[in-house]
Amino acid sequence: MARRRPASTTLRVALLGCGNVGLALYELLTEPVQRAALAERTGLTFDVVGIAVTSTKPVRSSAPWFDASLLTTDAASLVLRPDVDVVVEVMGGIDGTVDLLDAALRSGASVVSANKALLAVHGRRLSQLAYDHGADLRYEAAVAGAIPILRVLRDALAGEQVHRVMGIVNGTTNFILSTMAAGGGDYAAVLEQAQRLGLAERDPAADVLGTDAAAKAAILASLAFDCKVTTKDVHCEGITEVTAADVAFARDLGFAVKLLAVCELLDGDELSVRVHPTMVPLDHPLAAVDGAFNAVFVEGASCGELMLYGRGAGGRPTASAVLGDLVEVARSMRRGGTPDVPLAPKVRPRRPLAAIASAFYLTIDVADRPGVLAEVTAIFGRHGVSIRSMEQLDLAGEARLVFVTHVALEGAMAATVKDLRRCRVVDRVGTLLRVIEGDQN
Amino acid sequence: MARRRPASTTLRVALLGCGNVGLALYELLTEPVQRAALAERTGLTFDVVGIAVTSTKPVRSSAPWFDASLLTTDAASLVLRPDVDVVVEVMGGIDGTVDLLDAALRSGASVVSANKALLAVHGRRLSQLAYDHGADLRYEAAVAGAIPILRVLRDALAGEQVHRVMGIVNGTTNFILSTMAAGGGDYAAVLEQAQRLGLAERDPAADVLGTDAAAKAAILASLAFDCKVTTKDVHCEGITEVTAADVAFARDLGFAVKLLAVCELLDGDELSVRVHPTMVPLDHPLAAVDGAFNAVFVEGASCGELMLYGRGAGGRPTASAVLGDLVEVARSMRRGGTPDVPLAPKVRPRRPLAAIASAFYLTIDVADRPGVLAEVTAIFGRHGVSIRSMEQLDLAGEARLVFVTHVALEGAMAATVKDLRRCRVVDRVGTLLRVIEGDQN
Repeated sequence: MARRRPASTTLRVALLGCGNVGLALYELLTEPVQRAALAERTGLTFDVVGIAVTSTKPVRSSAPWFDASLLTTDAASLVLRPDVDVVVEVMGGIDGTVDLLDAALRSGASVVSANKALLAVHGRRLSQLAYDHGADLRYEAAVAGAIPILRVLRDALAGEQVHRVMGIVNGTTNFILSTMAAGGGDYAAVLEQAQRLGLAERDPAADVLGTDAAAKAAILASLAFDCKVTTKDVHCEGITEVTAADVAFARDLGFAVKLLAVCELLDGDELSVRVHPTMVPLDHPLAAVDGAFNAVFVEGASCGELMLYGRGAGGRPTASAVLGDLVEVARSMRRGGTPDVPLAPKVRPRRPLAAIASAFYLTIDVADRPGVLAEVTAIFGRHGVSIRSMEQLDLAGEARLVFVTHVALEGAMAATVKDLRRCRVVDRVGTLLRVIEGDQN
Repeated sequence: MARRRPASTTLRVALLGCGNVGLALYELLTEPVQRAALAERTGLTFDVVGIAVTSTKPVRSSAPWFDASLLTTDAASLVLRPDVDVVVEVMGGIDGTVDLLDAALRSGASVVSANKALLAVHGRRLSQLAYDHGADLRYEAAVAGAIPILRVLRDALAGEQVHRVMGIVNGTTNFILSTMAAGGGDYAAVLEQAQRLGLAERDPAADVLGTDAAAKAAILASLAFDCKVTTKDVHCEGITEVTAADVAFARDLGFAVKLLAVCELLDGDELSVRVHPTMVPLDHPLAAVDGAFNAVFVEGASCGELMLYGRGAGGRPTASAVLGDLVEVARSMRRGGTPDVPLAPKVRPRRPLAAIASAFYLTIDVADRPGVLAEVTAIFGRHGVSIRSMEQLDLAGEARLVFVTHVALEGAMAATVKDLRRCRVVDRVGTLLRVIEGDQN
């Protein structure tokens, strides 16, 4: 279908949600200087014509010109209003929300969303729906906040053969791991601190278990490799088992521990998408990404290594990304013409986790007596996992063995861990961390 | 004028120049797998229809399918061929080259160029010419190689109020400074090493004097702040006076020395664009950008800090950026419609260098006797430059004073340096480095 053109020189925006991000966006869209700049840069004036909220309690905006008459609790009617050109979704949720976006796109309105959980499941279908109805769907803010990584993958790298994308895409876990690395205490204490600072939710599960990062990994992989990837395709391990001792040991070995989203195209075609705590060499650009910052590292056949770094969350940085999308929608509506060819997503085989190669870090607490080391290392050997380095720390009555392996298959390492758990001289098997080797980069 | 549409489903490309970048690009455009991927992602097949070279000596391509019959020494005729949709300029030069691009745009062909020196002078005029003839002008490869910074400024940050852009945009000087920091020797020795490694030209002037970085700074500033900025507007100091002792001292103080291109919009409207060696705090993301890598750090009102990092030079990374532009031209031609509104460049006042505020690093060699320090510091005081720290090193028969100042005006500091040079107890005034304070970020 031909692209819808704006009815006049105005782009009429409906906002779904008026929390942190929605309010920051409203202020960016309506502040007079900013509004004039937007009109100049797009040829269209931006007007907010309605704001859907869940309750009618007053909105606390710092903008004195905030227009409370725009508020409505009837989101379903708002998205279908004929005077809405673009619907901005910053309300969150999946099931009810996707119906609203669906309805908006079917009516020919464009959609800008910051909702990673929704897009990691419904992104491909909504993109096709947008194309079928001559509308745009944009969701830069869904991954890594203000960092324009989706746009770079879709546009700047459209001619590039990207083979790996690695991202620090969750600020909460990065703050926790950075603080642990700076000697801030063990996991539980630092999580509490993050909660006090408002950097972690009261229920931190989505962050610390890696599911938030997994949704973003799915979106990154589906754009980088042009195939359908949903959260279910992502192997996901969180940071709840990482100890301060692990982080300190990693640092002594020359590594920072980061929760990485890793998207790979192996041997040119097989897909692997994983989220797990990873040891990153200190001289790797991702190692220096601390606190609540995010970064995405891309490797391509011609561009080589490329990294984008910035604020991954927060009202204004997220609103900035939404605003960038709105500018793009405005320019595209004003321009008219034939929409871009939608990519027919490729069907790519998934490489099973067991067949992924990596180096590993593993700690094992054992009884402190002769012969134990031989017994333990024999288990590694039995599965063909070759040990690069081992260090022994004395604990009260037992010893902690800290192993770093050479590159081995995940399957072999999993079998090793299983046998170690069964081994009578082993008291406890600690965290398994993947290790990025310095020479890989 | 309405945008030109391609005559068929083919995008016909003329290459001007077949050096490192031209050859890498030819191979990317013609390699079968890559060619199929481009067709899929743009809806158009890319065909190279001619390659302008300066001499007819054989081109050494690693592609067995290289078609020597495409070569011509008649660039002027090539750009006017009616079967050329887009002209890619990777030949360099300014005066003769700009006439070719001019002719191409007037004939309605789009232009992709990697020529920073040309664009820093003629960019605005060529952009207007492109718009007037329904063509596109793109030049991502002109600044920071494979890093898509121009696109991010133009598109992703189009809704953002950017107030500062700082870039490490010259790989040669960054390699030299990084190597000096790693204890690799003094400036002259490291420059020789860079020349041996092919990282510096035989005549390194454009790199080490900062003029290459100044051209890129002009392009960055004109995009970030939407105004006409040419190389002449850029205050430019190179790295030839930076000594290994300065770099080592900076490191002890917690800084890395980088040649920075700094583009600022001060008090919301006044422009300042400068290139100079700068002390960057070690915990700033730019400090970790080593060797031949480039990075551009952007600060905006909503997005906060954003950094893009990657390969700033080399045949394939540069060709990758050109290819990204070609994909954009292809999509835009296929799409048709009304071209984007060209921005009427704003006239912004220039803030004179003397009125720019900064902290400074300065070394002064003095006679080693009582009363000298009082005399020297009195000169700082007379110009209102407040000293934050001073360290004294013993040299044979004299002393080296290493000063770091609080923030002062460039004018006051220049007057201080002038008086220090005249002072009878001062034997030598060393390098003046600007210092980015940790708390500025």
